[in-house]
Amino acid sequence: MKITGTFLDEISHDIPHQNWGREEWDRDFAAMKSIGIDTVILIRCGHRRFITYPSKFLMEHEGCYRPPVDLVDLFLELAEKYGMTFYFGLYDSGKYWHNRECEREMEISRAVADEVWSLYGNRKAFGGWYLNFEVSRASAGIIELYAGMGRHVKQLSGNLPTMISPYIDGIKAIGDVGVKDDSIGVTQHEQEWNAILKGIQGAVDIVAFQDGHCDYHELADYLRINKKLTDRYGMTSWTNCETFDRDMPIRFLPIKWEKMLLKLEAARAAGIEKAITFEFSHFMSPNSCYRAAGHLFDRYREHFSL
Amino acid sequence: MKITGTFLDEISHDIPHQNWGREEWDRDFAAMKSIGIDTVILIRCGHRRFITYPSKFLMEHEGCYRPPVDLVDLFLELAEKYGMTFYFGLYDSGKYWHNRECEREMEISRAVADEVWSLYGNRKAFGGWYLNFEVSRASAGIIELYAGMGRHVKQLSGNLPTMISPYIDGIKAIGDVGVKDDSIGVTQHEQEWNAILKGIQGAVDIVAFQDGHCDYHELADYLRINKKLTDRYGMTSWTNCETFDRDMPIRFLPIKWEKMLLKLEAARAAGIEKAITFEFSHFMSPNSCYRAAGHLFDRYREHFSL
Amino acid sequence: MKITGTFLDEISHDIPHQNWGREEWDRDFAAMKSIGIDTVILIRCGHRRFITYPSKFLMEHEGCYRPPVDLVDLFLELAEKYGMTFYFGLYDSGKYWHNRECEREMEISRAVADEVWSLYGNRKAFGGWYLNFEVSRASAGIIELYAGMGRHVKQLSGNLPTMISPYIDGIKAIGDVGVKDDSIGVTQHEQEWNAILKGIQGAVDIVAFQDGHCDYHELADYLRINKKLTDRYGMTSWTNCETFDRDMPIRFLPIKWEKMLLKLEAARAAGIEKAITFEFSHFMSPNSCYRAAGHLFDRYREHFSL
Repeated sequence: MKITGTFLDEISHDIPHQNWGREEWDRDFAAMKSIGIDTVILIRCGHRRFITYPSKFLMEHEGCYRPPVDLVDLFLELAEKYGMTFYFGLYDSGKYWHNRECEREMEISRAVADEVWSLYGNRKAFGGWYLNFEVSRASAGIIELYAGMGRHVKQLSGNLPTMISPYIDGIKAIGDVGVKDDSIGVTQHEQEWNAILKGIQGAVDIVAFQDGHCDYHELADYLRINKKLTDRYGMTSWTNCETFDRDMPIRFLPIKWEKMLLKLEAARAAGIEKAITFEFSHFMSPNSCYRAAGHLFDRYREHFSL
Repeated sequence: MKITGTFLDEISHDIPHQNWGREEWDRDFAAMKSIGIDTVILIRCGHRRFITYPSKFLMEHEGCYRPPVDLVDLFLELAEKYGMTFYFGLYDSGKYWHNRECEREMEISRAVADEVWSLYGNRKAFGGWYLNFEVSRASAGIIELYAGMGRHVKQLSGNLPTMISPYIDGIKAIGDVGVKDDSIGVTQHEQEWNAILKGIQGAVDIVAFQDGHCDYHELADYLRINKKLTDRYGMTSWTNCETFDRDMPIRFLPIKWEKMLLKLEAARAAGIEKAITFEFSHFMSPNSCYRAAGHLFDRYREHFSL
Repeated sequence: MKITGTFLDEISHDIPHQNWGREEWDRDFAAMKSIGIDTVILIRCGHRRFITYPSKFLMEHEGCYRPPVDLVDLFLELAEKYGMTFYFGLYDSGKYWHNRECEREMEISRAVADEVWSLYGNRKAFGGWYLNFEVSRASAGIIELYAGMGRHVKQLSGNLPTMISPYIDGIKAIGDVGVKDDSIGVTQHEQEWNAILKGIQGAVDIVAFQDGHCDYHELADYLRINKKLTDRYGMTSWTNCETFDRDMPIRFLPIKWEKMLLKLEAARAAGIEKAITFEFSHFMSPNSCYRAAGHLFDRYREHFSL
């Protein structure tokens, strides 16, 4: 079960920035390519006031700062150069949908998608959309948000595939700190996600659950349920293999290779179609500012003889 | 708006030590010089029991540890070698002035200043004093502390310039954790700092507010007020551009270049005279233990064609 | 007072993993050797479900994961290659003895020791046992645990030496966060540890207190008491010189050289026989992912002219 896709963590809200320019990004796309990565997913095109491309709409309506570089343009260019498919992650206001104002969030998100498609829709590498609303349960409004945005961007772009990456309400799903005593468990997970997937059928093509919120020995069970549910609704199951370590006091540094391997094995056992990661450039790259990431890259290549 | 000064973070209370020796410091002063830094400011000569030079007074009266290296001597030597002006930061007991014992703090601080001037006052690079008491508001005793120490060291040293570096009581001014809902706002900021600057006129020459405690789009307003107030009292306004990122869970790693640029632009718009940073060696240097600092250095040089 | 031993932090529960393979470990043992390290101590052979060698017992009875590499085998091989003595750290369930089920912990620990001795007891470098239960006070059951396990492994292995590494209940002994106002103080420390050492006489040979939980100027007093007590019961006193910095908000990065030196001087003054560290590979090694560790290595070598 090899990693063949990665998120691009621009804009981040909790991972410190590496301050890369064009040259550094080019070198990192080459490193991705060298281990078989064919898909890159911009995790979001903006968060609060920071944005990845000079969005006229967001600067005018949400007070966003004009970015010094057009990263969407850069990533599309590099994706094309290295023969990769680029997924575009929508805008996250950081407030509206978190405060039950999903309608307002969707209004902005639609306008951003329209603008983006008119600016970059003709680019060769533009191959899909990432609906960047991350939830673990059937919270109020999430079905409408996924379904509404999924349908909108598919219609806009000639039915390009759409992806979501939810998380499991496991023992590590408590903000960024520690471990909680209980989780909703596999039965309730199945019930709630059955309802969600049913409600977003036709609007969402790919479900890539984050794999870091439950214990390692619990993961295979969750992945099997996820696979069963996506099969039921004609969707595709990917796994989002987190390459940062959720078990350490420093939040976050690269994961221990043994843990990553356990998670990939669980995904393979569950028949998951494709593995992507959050994310290569900080946590698994020889170019990362964290040296343990380069060693993870080496262990990964050794294991798969790459 | 280029960075032409930096703090030297010895002794630190919250930034992990890089364990540099003479050779590493020399290399870092060369890197500073290469981008036009002409001013270095020792943030404090001691904190609690750790001190930067073998102070007979502090070892005898405050139980301080004898340092393995005389960093004041080393920094003065390197400042002279690279043609820089050195500001000397006073001692911070870490207890007296924090516990409303400003008189005791001042007594110690005066003795330290006297000792330092007798030891290093003849050194060519010794060009000013940093009054290292950092406050955001008109807290009890701070006017007396700034004014008393400012007058003392100016008299001692033939009127060498004195600097303070307060912070703004903005949404990020809550210890080291998270964001608070309110701040005192620009109106009250102006009132309180008008009172403080009025009270320390003649004793303090340079006011270099830290620029990291309010949101990026709020900064220009605060800086304009700061400039208006320092103009009113015949002082000089510098900006202390923080090069670490206050928005991340790891406290602290290098700032995102885009954020730094926003802050420098705000300082330029407000007519600030000079930009210094806290601080080059950890957060902006190619020699830093944090690799993202080297990339920040590269982005900074690209932007200013250095 | 030179460092001549180091823990090997596999498996860690709070230090992020470096993802080293055979080549990286070999290089690091060479670096250890270069400064005179002759003793390596595996801090534990397993923690919860993660283990260092493919223990049939732990995989069957405790649901442990099969490790991708046999680290015990690797470390024994490298210890032999570099002429070092290897101490084997017992298993830590992470639950039983923490929840007053010392009997259950001991049952598992005995089985693991038996298995380990049958697998690796014939290896040339296998030179001792580390009883990895870390306490600061005479907590319920700890005497029985130390004594029971110490006697068991000594009997098993022809009386190989046993070591413990407790910590001082000082101002920094409050989990991983901050500083507390009080500690039990030297008098009660002496009373409680007198009782513990008396109770484990004959079962434990070496007591290597961790040196990071009290303030620097308090350490010598504690070490003198430790030395007096171990002398009384015919044991050997080592110091476990922590090379990570407990005073910083990032938990944990390499310690400031000055602090390390203060602690080594205190150990020398107290007549401690040998200094080991927790631990070389992350915090003091030129190969560490933390660059400040390499600089600490340089400062250390300069000081001792190594």
